[in-house]
Amino acid sequence: MQYVSKYEQMPVTKVNDTYERRWVKTDKLMLVNAEFTDGPCDKPDPFHSHPHEQVSYMADGEVYLFVADEEKVHLKSGDKFAIPPNVPHTIQRLTSFVRIIDCFTPVREDFL
Amino acid sequence: MQYVSKYEQMPVTKVNDTYERRWVKTDKLMLVNAEFTDGPCDKPDPFHSHPHEQVSYMADGEVYLFVADEEKVHLKSGDKFAIPPNVPHTIQRLTSFVRIIDCFTPVREDFL
Repeated sequence: MQYVSKYEQMPVTKVNDTYERRWVKTDKLMLVNAEFTDGPCDKPDPFHSHPHEQVSYMADGEVYLFVADEEKVHLKSGDKFAIPPNVPHTIQRLTSFVRIIDCFTPVREDFL
Repeated sequence: MQYVSKYEQMPVTKVNDTYERRWVKTDKLMLVNAEFTDGPCDKPDPFHSHPHEQVSYMADGEVYLFVADEEKVHLKSGDKFAIPPNVPHTIQRLTSFVRIIDCFTPVREDFL
């Protein structure tokens, strides 16, 4: 097994022109480096949800996080959040570059 | 449920004078912000292992990562690694400040 993934050598999934994903995983656990370059955005993305549990770390940039019907929260580097299964959430990017580290269990098969 | 954990407001576990942990979790998933201020170190910590799956993100600083009997790897900000259950691993901190984001499934009950 390859334990280490150096940033420069990781396969990149270009979801679109301004959204890239790089990931590592074990059997039931996935860490996704999500990078966005479309900010600042004047509105949030549409809400989404998934049956996977999610915990996330704001690595770079700033966003508004929206979860369910809670008030939006301003997040910056160092902040974290936790999303239980099937709870709707989304972000609005406030800076030109945003990197979020998203971890999921089980693995997001739709990201492979 | 509290979805968001702002860095400044998170409870801190001071493991020792130079090692702090802050964490968020869902049911089966835990994200740990581990910060070390004892580097640079002239040798690695002792190897350790756990039955939990682990994926990690190097947020700040540089380390050598040692996994099982593999050659050590130099990691810097942006690099990732994945540790299956019960595989021995450790780090040697190379910079004065090191922050690693460690994710585990199941939750590390020993960190609560």
